[in-house]
Amino acid sequence: MRITSASIQDTFWQNYIDLVRQTVIPYQWEALNDRIEGAEPSHAIRNFRIAAGLEEGEFGGWIFQDSDLYKWLEAVSYSLRNHPDSDLETIADGAIDLIGQAQHENGYLNTYFTTKEPGKQWTNLYEAHELYCAGHLIEAAVAYYRATGKRKLLDIACRFTDLIASMFGTEPNQIRGYCGHQEIELALIKLYGITGEERYLNLSRYFIDERGSKPNYFMEEWERRGRTTIWAQGTPNLEVYQCHLPVREQTVAVGHSVRAVYMYTAMADLARLTGDVKLREACERLWANTTLKQMYITGGIGATHLGEAFTFDYDLPNDTVYAETCASIGLIFWARRMLQLEAKGDYADVMERALYNNVLGSMSTDGKHFFYVNPLEVWPEASMKNPDKHHVKPVRQKWFGCSCCPPNVARLLSSLNDYIYDVSDDGKTVHTHLYIGSDLRFETAGCMVTLKQRSELPWGGRVEFTASLSGKADRAAFALALRVPGWIQSGSPALKVNGEIQNYRVESGYAVIDRVWSDGDTLEWLLPLETMLVEAHPLIRANAGKTAIQRGPLVYCVEEADCGVPLAMLSLAEDPKLSEHPHPDLLGGCVVVEGEGIAIDISAWSEIQPYRPRQKQGVPARIKAIPYFLWGNRQPGEMSVWLRD
Amino acid sequence: MRITSASIQDTFWQNYIDLVRQTVIPYQWEALNDRIEGAEPSHAIRNFRIAAGLEEGEFGGWIFQDSDLYKWLEAVSYSLRNHPDSDLETIADGAIDLIGQAQHENGYLNTYFTTKEPGKQWTNLYEAHELYCAGHLIEAAVAYYRATGKRKLLDIACRFTDLIASMFGTEPNQIRGYCGHQEIELALIKLYGITGEERYLNLSRYFIDERGSKPNYFMEEWERRGRTTIWAQGTPNLEVYQCHLPVREQTVAVGHSVRAVYMYTAMADLARLTGDVKLREACERLWANTTLKQMYITGGIGATHLGEAFTFDYDLPNDTVYAETCASIGLIFWARRMLQLEAKGDYADVMERALYNNVLGSMSTDGKHFFYVNPLEVWPEASMKNPDKHHVKPVRQKWFGCSCCPPNVARLLSSLNDYIYDVSDDGKTVHTHLYIGSDLRFETAGCMVTLKQRSELPWGGRVEFTASLSGKADRAAFALALRVPGWIQSGSPALKVNGEIQNYRVESGYAVIDRVWSDGDTLEWLLPLETMLVEAHPLIRANAGKTAIQRGPLVYCVEEADCGVPLAMLSLAEDPKLSEHPHPDLLGGCVVVEGEGIAIDISAWSEIQPYRPRQKQGVPARIKAIPYFLWGNRQPGEMSVWLRD
Repeated sequence: MRITSASIQDTFWQNYIDLVRQTVIPYQWEALNDRIEGAEPSHAIRNFRIAAGLEEGEFGGWIFQDSDLYKWLEAVSYSLRNHPDSDLETIADGAIDLIGQAQHENGYLNTYFTTKEPGKQWTNLYEAHELYCAGHLIEAAVAYYRATGKRKLLDIACRFTDLIASMFGTEPNQIRGYCGHQEIELALIKLYGITGEERYLNLSRYFIDERGSKPNYFMEEWERRGRTTIWAQGTPNLEVYQCHLPVREQTVAVGHSVRAVYMYTAMADLARLTGDVKLREACERLWANTTLKQMYITGGIGATHLGEAFTFDYDLPNDTVYAETCASIGLIFWARRMLQLEAKGDYADVMERALYNNVLGSMSTDGKHFFYVNPLEVWPEASMKNPDKHHVKPVRQKWFGCSCCPPNVARLLSSLNDYIYDVSDDGKTVHTHLYIGSDLRFETAGCMVTLKQRSELPWGGRVEFTASLSGKADRAAFALALRVPGWIQSGSPALKVNGEIQNYRVESGYAVIDRVWSDGDTLEWLLPLETMLVEAHPLIRANAGKTAIQRGPLVYCVEEADCGVPLAMLSLAEDPKLSEHPHPDLLGGCVVVEGEGIAIDISAWSEIQPYRPRQKQGVPARIKAIPYFLWGNRQPGEMSVWLRD
Repeated sequence: MRITSASIQDTFWQNYIDLVRQTVIPYQWEALNDRIEGAEPSHAIRNFRIAAGLEEGEFGGWIFQDSDLYKWLEAVSYSLRNHPDSDLETIADGAIDLIGQAQHENGYLNTYFTTKEPGKQWTNLYEAHELYCAGHLIEAAVAYYRATGKRKLLDIACRFTDLIASMFGTEPNQIRGYCGHQEIELALIKLYGITGEERYLNLSRYFIDERGSKPNYFMEEWERRGRTTIWAQGTPNLEVYQCHLPVREQTVAVGHSVRAVYMYTAMADLARLTGDVKLREACERLWANTTLKQMYITGGIGATHLGEAFTFDYDLPNDTVYAETCASIGLIFWARRMLQLEAKGDYADVMERALYNNVLGSMSTDGKHFFYVNPLEVWPEASMKNPDKHHVKPVRQKWFGCSCCPPNVARLLSSLNDYIYDVSDDGKTVHTHLYIGSDLRFETAGCMVTLKQRSELPWGGRVEFTASLSGKADRAAFALALRVPGWIQSGSPALKVNGEIQNYRVESGYAVIDRVWSDGDTLEWLLPLETMLVEAHPLIRANAGKTAIQRGPLVYCVEEADCGVPLAMLSLAEDPKLSEHPHPDLLGGCVVVEGEGIAIDISAWSEIQPYRPRQKQGVPARIKAIPYFLWGNRQPGEMSVWLRD
């Protein structure tokens, strides 16, 4: 694909991107420096200072704590690209200098093993996250180079990667292992992309190809360590780490969900870059399994907190759910790569679903509080008093000892401009995956095109594109492929070109408008944005007899603040007569959906009867639903996505 | 209360009692002797042999393993009382001799501390179960003495108890503690009952009164142990052990559910024997909380497996449930004592509910397999593949490392004759709590009365009583108080005396028939046994929009074997037109309930849609429900008590 640049110009998203830039990034910098009062210290910067010999002390935080600084630097890079900020860049340069000081002569870089277990490097790939941290270093380095043109972090990353490349592989003197937490695989693809060095592509391919081969590396490593582990008990669990089978033989998403989707992301990249058909088929199989059988309506994945893992097909409990923020971010990474492999609307539908619901909902409207777990049903008293639900928090948390999610949100939202379009190598086809207001610049046949997208989403369905041409030609021939969203319930989007209705053909979920564009051409794309009642596949036991409300890409939910409790008493009327109401003052502005419901008549119950002959007494009730991504921003209370029929 | 004797003559129950006598007791003896192939060894007998110096080796099993032998002896005692068996008695005598050999000079008796941690006695009341094991020794001793008249085990128990009484109390040289697992409190009441020794009553009262006083004994003990524990981590959890407050101030059932109900049982005994009003009020408060807000429709209690504990009011999830067998047995113990405190139909209703559903369902029809956890909803694949449900087994297990439940079932079922009647001290009132065929013998004003009860329950509603008089008088005046079951949906039981319909008055849930009885008088008590649809209190979120089927005391469920899967696809028709069908060949004979339902039309779904616009397409389906207590006796499959409306 051709390198293009898009910049976001969108009221809805600009809010979030500004929040990341103005609040999340500075707040996280304070956190990395242990300066947030009342929060667990991160230790991240201090670990680097100790490793660099600038400070005495002991390593603190998780074994993979370095990755927090790298993820922050990656988010900073994206932010700088869109919004230059010399003060922030100076801080980042300082952090990069510190990283350089912590790097060994031979390129090795990991503060845990440098300060706490020197000599034990590469002895516990199963748990110790060394290659994982290297992967985040690489991602940060690539992003920082792209944003600033500065090579220092990229050189640090390349030196470390070259060491890794010399140590890992199938040669007799090499370690024939791979990381317990996939990440470096996808990072190496990025490093290959920016440097053009085939050895980075090959190293990624080695890690992917080697995974799951027999005899199993983690089993042998565990034996060599005298069967000791850091956290895990007993024999290594190969399914949790997706190395139970060679990746090309995997058919079902299993194990730790973040590890899984990070791996699938790299697999999709490799399938595209190498034309590996078996790998591509594995990606398609795993995609189908994940998104058709193991995905919540919010785009959440991972049904259990034990192991933060996938369970099995159609097991999607709403209340004991995990649906980790990072897992949905990883799903978005993967969807993005699948789109590069093949422009299919389905991939973008899932990407949009996870983005607008699970991921957006994970951050509070103040940008300082985050959900790890994104439940579809919350009973705050159960979260407190039933230990099976302790992991489900009714309010977003300030900062975490294991702080993977907030920096991941930051790096996704600040690079959102990379998720909207794909322009083909010849500049002749522009796929629009997401309807996010933005200016895309690309070149086609010597003509510089600026395509302005303006979108009312998620509140309205009107999208407008305007083409501005510059350069020697005053006309440009290219096809604009516009995604036909999967959430359209009835009808199809109307298309107007320069005010006139036009027909269009649909290919793989995209409306293709193939024409010769003139400067100032305007295209209107009118998406029918209806409120829709949704039912789940009957094999998803948890949603039997239940209905969700969706409007455009937004999944809705009911909250105690609007509907009282228990929410379970409420059901939808046979014809709920849903209506839409814009509330500019509610939760920063949103469209509320209201309708008719029935509530169990609790006044007809006495406390002396836990069970009684069925009477099915209902009283009319009003249902008021808000977008899921805004839940939990008022008083803590019950919340539910699924309503009884 | 007057000591009376009832012997069961009942086809339905005799099956179970025979199963206990012929299968469970011999099988458990083999298990105690580690002779069950393929099962985890119990170590119980071996531990006693090691403690007695008859064998070399190391203690095995749980720290409270001794109690397994005691509970077995208690079950054997009840069995011998009803069904003398000299071979079994010889085996029991041998076991008792062994117990005697393991007892210390000073009366101390516990094989764990004798063999594994000598010198550490009484240093970890919080976890080590020493007084708990003593309690089970006492219960076995009382039962064996009552059954056989042999004093040996009773003497062993009294010697140990006298040691405990000298060591525990409020005197300066005494340990001011109590057991982490309540049990001895209720056992001491029994010992007082058989010996008449006030010091045993006082010791029980001391344990109950001291519990929850400040400063907390377990906190101090934990500090003395250098903050070490065996299993529990961190600070002692006082709520789990019900010592967060003095018992008279407790209002809500909290913590480990078996510990809780064992304690409440002793509290009810003490309230009755001492006339302690505050204690009685505490019992009544805790009873109301437990049975109105924290009890499953099956009589199960304890909503979470983490801590095997109560959670909070109305939190009764059907699928992640615990509802341990032992907890329902403890609830039956407690109900029995509440009935002795005050004959109220509500207590017997709960007793009957727990007995016919949770407890009876815990044992397989072969008497060799048991449930610990008694779920109300099972999805076998989730039990295997979702770790949040690993504790929920879709099939009964053979024997357990921690084998509390099977011996508890055995001792309850073989003493079931003690749960049917209460005869007042003056012999003038006979309360019938349970409709279980049985012969009750009691004396009133010099007349020996044999009251024969014959009952069709649980399959039919007809109950018949016949009085036989012997002795000097040929007439006897006494009131027969017959419980009016809470499960009667409409109408009231018809009463016939010698074939003629009679009116009666109802007091506290009992129909009182006060008359002068002649030899041969017959009373018919005709309970309207209808199949009933039941709804749960709206605050029980898990059952919102759901209905259960109950017929008489039996809760029903649907199983995959009859209804296919997923069961969640099934809902009851608006009018399900339920009908009853006796199936003499199904699961040992039962009445099946059938009706009309609606199933989601899965044929209208394609796999490529996990979610779609709601269509609510249903197809007619047949519902076939079986008694809950018989679930899981066919191929492993889905099961559900609650059906969608």
